[in-house]
Amino acid sequence: MATYARSVERLIAELSRLPTIGPRSAQRIAFHIIRTRKEEALALAEALREVKERIRPCRRCFNLTEGEECDICRDPRRDRSVICVVEDPYDIGPIERTGEYRGLYHVLGGALSPLDGVEPEDLRIAELVERVRSEGTRELILATNPNTTGEATAMFIAQEVRELPVRVTALASGLPVGGDLEYADEVTLGRAFAGRREL
Amino acid sequence: MATYARSVERLIAELSRLPTIGPRSAQRIAFHIIRTRKEEALALAEALREVKERIRPCRRCFNLTEGEECDICRDPRRDRSVICVVEDPYDIGPIERTGEYRGLYHVLGGALSPLDGVEPEDLRIAELVERVRSEGTRELILATNPNTTGEATAMFIAQEVRELPVRVTALASGLPVGGDLEYADEVTLGRAFAGRREL
Repeated sequence: MATYARSVERLIAELSRLPTIGPRSAQRIAFHIIRTRKEEALALAEALREVKERIRPCRRCFNLTEGEECDICRDPRRDRSVICVVEDPYDIGPIERTGEYRGLYHVLGGALSPLDGVEPEDLRIAELVERVRSEGTRELILATNPNTTGEATAMFIAQEVRELPVRVTALASGLPVGGDLEYADEVTLGRAFAGRREL
Repeated sequence: MATYARSVERLIAELSRLPTIGPRSAQRIAFHIIRTRKEEALALAEALREVKERIRPCRRCFNLTEGEECDICRDPRRDRSVICVVEDPYDIGPIERTGEYRGLYHVLGGALSPLDGVEPEDLRIAELVERVRSEGTRELILATNPNTTGEATAMFIAQEVRELPVRVTALASGLPVGGDLEYADEVTLGRAFAGRREL
């Protein structure tokens, strides 16, 4: 016999499948939903349905959008001569929040990882090269993740566009602002030394 | 301009309203849902709807149920002479998992807290007294939370049934098993001393 009613157990099971939600959180959320107003629970159910029905990739940059092109690609104030290359759509949010970047994006859909079977043709690399060619891109900022697969992907892309008249840059590696040198790992600290700037 | 498409922002907002989910988790979950198979996302939406439509309080003990009475009240193997009194339905799961308890439950729906406007008539205390009277209960185990409001509630209930022929007990306070005496707070340690047992 299950501890809770069948529909409660089912909701807990469905919630537990989500990332960042463990069994205890799933239970707390389920009981919150049982207690809460019906409209609030149904609003969440509706938001789930809606996102699955409406969201698709932007035909230009593969960011998520509800239309043909995403808001960023359609924004006339963006600098169309620069493309920032990211692995996933959710890498765009943090970059936008810096307020430092006003160019376009290109979402690869992951990083090269031959061991996991992710080859160049599984990512939107050909589409990126075609964009650089046809849009007359001046600079490509490679903002893949600062790990093995992300850096391998950046190297591969740099090779792919080496014949084209485009400047290729990558985000700086170094100590996080507000971080503590004492707790920095050696690789980051090594990069911070290698990338040291004149003051 | 929002960073993400409108339906994505809406889903993140709805997820952020849930307990234990911060803005970053909400974003991770939203992107997981966008990537996942449509059936999985719709299964969660359906589980949300279902729980709001089916779940109601057991007419005897106020545990959550899909029928008139909950599984525990309907189970003929349970000892009907003992009632364990808890604040919320989700306190029942942990007690059931101990495997130590085979009696019935009574869910109060909270704890007395005059400062928050929770008075005796806001809880199912009258219903509990009526059960003790009509069901010929032999023992009432008060398992309200070991904090100020929980203990005030237990004291109040003990007073309410003092004229009835029922034994009233409360869960033991003491050091948690696997805990470390060095890190125990003084109140818990004091209770552990007061409740020390012969070995």
